[in-house]
Amino acid sequence: MIQTKLQAVCLLIEERLQIENTEIRKALIDLTNAGGKFLRPTFFFLFAELGDKEKQNPEQLLKIAASLEILHMASLVHDDIIDDSPLRRNLITIQAQYGKDVAVYTGDLLFTIFFDLIIESMNGSAYLAKNSAAMSHLLLGELNQMADRFHTDNTVENYLHNIDGKTAELFALACLEGAYFGHCSEETVGLAEKIGRNIGMAFQIYDDILDYTADKKDLKKPILEDLAQGVYTLPLLMAKKRHPEAFMPYLSKGADITVEEAKIVADLVVTYQGVKEAKAYAKNFTKEALTLIDRLPKGETKKLLKKLTTYLLLRTS
Amino acid sequence: MIQTKLQAVCLLIEERLQIENTEIRKALIDLTNAGGKFLRPTFFFLFAELGDKEKQNPEQLLKIAASLEILHMASLVHDDIIDDSPLRRNLITIQAQYGKDVAVYTGDLLFTIFFDLIIESMNGSAYLAKNSAAMSHLLLGELNQMADRFHTDNTVENYLHNIDGKTAELFALACLEGAYFGHCSEETVGLAEKIGRNIGMAFQIYDDILDYTADKKDLKKPILEDLAQGVYTLPLLMAKKRHPEAFMPYLSKGADITVEEAKIVADLVVTYQGVKEAKAYAKNFTKEALTLIDRLPKGETKKLLKKLTTYLLLRTS
Repeated sequence: MIQTKLQAVCLLIEERLQIENTEIRKALIDLTNAGGKFLRPTFFFLFAELGDKEKQNPEQLLKIAASLEILHMASLVHDDIIDDSPLRRNLITIQAQYGKDVAVYTGDLLFTIFFDLIIESMNGSAYLAKNSAAMSHLLLGELNQMADRFHTDNTVENYLHNIDGKTAELFALACLEGAYFGHCSEETVGLAEKIGRNIGMAFQIYDDILDYTADKKDLKKPILEDLAQGVYTLPLLMAKKRHPEAFMPYLSKGADITVEEAKIVADLVVTYQGVKEAKAYAKNFTKEALTLIDRLPKGETKKLLKKLTTYLLLRTS
Repeated sequence: MIQTKLQAVCLLIEERLQIENTEIRKALIDLTNAGGKFLRPTFFFLFAELGDKEKQNPEQLLKIAASLEILHMASLVHDDIIDDSPLRRNLITIQAQYGKDVAVYTGDLLFTIFFDLIIESMNGSAYLAKNSAAMSHLLLGELNQMADRFHTDNTVENYLHNIDGKTAELFALACLEGAYFGHCSEETVGLAEKIGRNIGMAFQIYDDILDYTADKKDLKKPILEDLAQGVYTLPLLMAKKRHPEAFMPYLSKGADITVEEAKIVADLVVTYQGVKEAKAYAKNFTKEALTLIDRLPKGETKKLLKKLTTYLLLRTS
């Protein structure tokens, strides 16, 4: 059932990508179809399932679900500029294929499509401002992460603050909007945002762990990318806390770190328990999410939510 | 009186630029204060003056005026990435000072501040969608212009279509919103958008003419920039229409054109009446704007609008 809805989201996104430039249009449609997990729309629809079906407006829900995915896509397109990423979901990125210039405007256009969709679906609602605030948090998270690059004194607190903006915010919004526009009880709406935020935090931490543990063939982006870009994520921060002297000779090189040295650092991160301790953080967020899910109304959807959260967040442990 | 309002707009923009990164914040505030002409807020307030003062909400008008300037600033920050511009309003651009990466997110943040302001000031109004559509047209104009770079077969029609999006759209919106939220008559609201569009078209054409006629010291951006970037504007297109054979040896070099060759092309543009004919186009748009202004309600504001339009658009002739 969710699958059918996600297909409708995918179709709506394609329909909205009306960009005269056919090459860019095609690149964006390919990106939409290329195995993106549609996680944000999925959580959105699951929470909507918990609400009062009779009061729901399916067209409105569809547009909001699409808006969440498009906001995510917009940030991906701009992230790929910053990261100089050649690949995303096994496709050549827009910045690699058409240049950073085209990628700037393409991302901007996706932002306007996002706004089109939320204006159409919730004009007059206080949730418009929530969307704008979420977009702002998302960007500030990215901007701060960028400003912190190559800072060897970056803290865990700072890291958590940045991923709260760049990732957890949108998961929180997805769950919140699903509950609210799905006409759930006030209590469920309140829980939804917190559940989404915890899932988002855990999701990003696991994503950052994968940078240190995954083989290139398993993952759809080059490994150790963050390290080379000077983005020091939780596994590194935890290991460095334990043995700063082991890391400093490498990290003090900043952007001049070689691939060989980066591999040594990655090994040190594992050796000094960085991956293990980061997993402990992620597990705490997952546990908190599951505890909150327990307080949702009983039924099939609750079970599904629990299953998805467990599956998604325990994937690497 | 308008001056006082523009100062309030400036203060509101500063207030909204709450970006944790103090360097970027300072760069944006400097950009706001650095002699930007605040043309869009100016036209906005002038049209509002034509309306029913008793019905007006000063705070709402202030926010909308600021939103127009911020949307303009956002597009400048991203344009500077595309154009590799070192300077804007005699200041080092954000992309030159902090890198393209920072400039991407900074422009994005300005887009969210734009949306914050319009959501706060017109939530529930059909004008929200008009704003979103305007932003979309603006970006498509830029995207198309970029896609047309170095196309020696670019047409005048295409050029006019692109500047209608990238420049005239925002002038049209400024005048339209001034009239609408200033509670003008329906007739004035209808005229406002057309007047703004004609002013915007003439404004951009004159701006493009300056690339071929101004000394570097007079202008705040490097001359012949467009030509070197492969953006073939109206003066060149008109001259080339007359004597394609004179231009092709140079234009066929594309991005490899030298500074010396670009200067030769600039001379050819003047020799073959390109500047003259482009001015004729601009004058037509200006004349159309003035004819439409004539149909506005009588009074001081109408005189001011006429004066400003004449001053602004006949500056180079």
